[in-house]
Amino acid sequence: MKTLIVYAHPESKSLNGSLKDLAVSTLSNAGHEVRVSDLYAMNWKAVVDAADYGPEASRPLKVALDSGRAFDSGTLTPDVLGEQEKLLWADTIIFQFPLWWYTMPAILKGWVDRVFTYHFAYGVGEHSDTKYGERFGEGTLAGRRALLSVTAGGPESHYSARGINGPMRRSGTTGGERSAALSPHLPRGPSPRARGAGAPDLAAATAAGPSPRAREAGRGGRRLFISLGGGWIGVGSMFTRTAGT
Amino acid sequence: MKTLIVYAHPESKSLNGSLKDLAVSTLSNAGHEVRVSDLYAMNWKAVVDAADYGPEASRPLKVALDSGRAFDSGTLTPDVLGEQEKLLWADTIIFQFPLWWYTMPAILKGWVDRVFTYHFAYGVGEHSDTKYGERFGEGTLAGRRALLSVTAGGPESHYSARGINGPMRRSGTTGGERSAALSPHLPRGPSPRARGAGAPDLAAATAAGPSPRAREAGRGGRRLFISLGGGWIGVGSMFTRTAGT
Repeated sequence: MKTLIVYAHPESKSLNGSLKDLAVSTLSNAGHEVRVSDLYAMNWKAVVDAADYGPEASRPLKVALDSGRAFDSGTLTPDVLGEQEKLLWADTIIFQFPLWWYTMPAILKGWVDRVFTYHFAYGVGEHSDTKYGERFGEGTLAGRRALLSVTAGGPESHYSARGINGPMRRSGTTGGERSAALSPHLPRGPSPRARGAGAPDLAAATAAGPSPRAREAGRGGRRLFISLGGGWIGVGSMFTRTAGT
Repeated sequence: MKTLIVYAHPESKSLNGSLKDLAVSTLSNAGHEVRVSDLYAMNWKAVVDAADYGPEASRPLKVALDSGRAFDSGTLTPDVLGEQEKLLWADTIIFQFPLWWYTMPAILKGWVDRVFTYHFAYGVGEHSDTKYGERFGEGTLAGRRALLSVTAGGPESHYSARGINGPMRRSGTTGGERSAALSPHLPRGPSPRARGAGAPDLAAATAAGPSPRAREAGRGGRRLFISLGGGWIGVGSMFTRTAGT
């Protein structure tokens, strides 16, 4: 298995950092290949702007069209090209991040915004009145699986059905047999108890096909959302009414 | 009325830029006060890191605790203090942005991550087994109203009930009489037709209390989500399976 871990936390000695390290060692010890994009360590540029498309950027700037042109001509910036190469190399992607205001930290959102360019992650294939590109298992990233490994603040009781935050439910949009949204890994934190919550769902990630848990995720609830299409891996938003750790 | 417009688009000559300008002129001409946070023009720092909390930052870094300490001691960075001052000044906040991968661009997510600090936007009030701070109409930003003005790519038919993207539904979590989630403004784009879609829902925003549309939003669907609590304004995530413009 070839796993890309996209990791977003400003402190390597955090629970998120530990979970990332544990995933690396667990997978490596099992004989799998692992690569890590440590966005803070890479000083990842989070903000889409004209500099992403070089001197040929349109004026006025047209983000989608310019990103597609730069992708087609191979003139995207080296940092973006590097991440696209990792995505094409990987068969499994783990996103490791804390839940901040319902969703991923800005640095990871900026990874999505910049790496998932037009013609690479969307705008691929036939576009017409009845079809709008290759989606949901048909596109560039078809067949890959993704796992969200997310930490959130607050005691577990607050995430019960009647807790102040409500339950963290999840849903998945899968592309049929060729892709799978794995059940998300949601340790509670930052209490010491959470540190015993175990590793991400690597057993599911290493399964040969969509696991029972993955299939369950595809039929799951509403709150925690991962859309794993082939045309694009949509890193959906996770709803929980707390600030993450 | 005192309105803060938080605007996130890299191109001033975009539909988003035009909607922002239209909101400014419409509100100003009606005698209201308007301030704009143009995040790209401000070169807004999107990424939370130790530099946000100065030499007193914890090692290892603890984002929530450090942000609360810096808030308490008045040592947050000037850019963050400036935005908090604007939020306290305003009674209405308009978020103007394109929908990129289900939610706001990274630069705006970074505004949320950095401005909504502990002790300002969460972690306020009693914390116990039965209560977890002032929320949903009780906290620092109680009584303010927010409007999401969002653009999205793709033809309108794709957002119909059976379209590839599905409908853009919405839900709101309001704090009772003291806060309101206004009906979101969702022009379709980038076709020229969208340019005639009109201004954000300023009529609702200028109403004395929650308008019928605001109350409707509170009972609405699931996809487009705004949580407007008093303890914090939660800029929820918007789901639509397209890349925005």
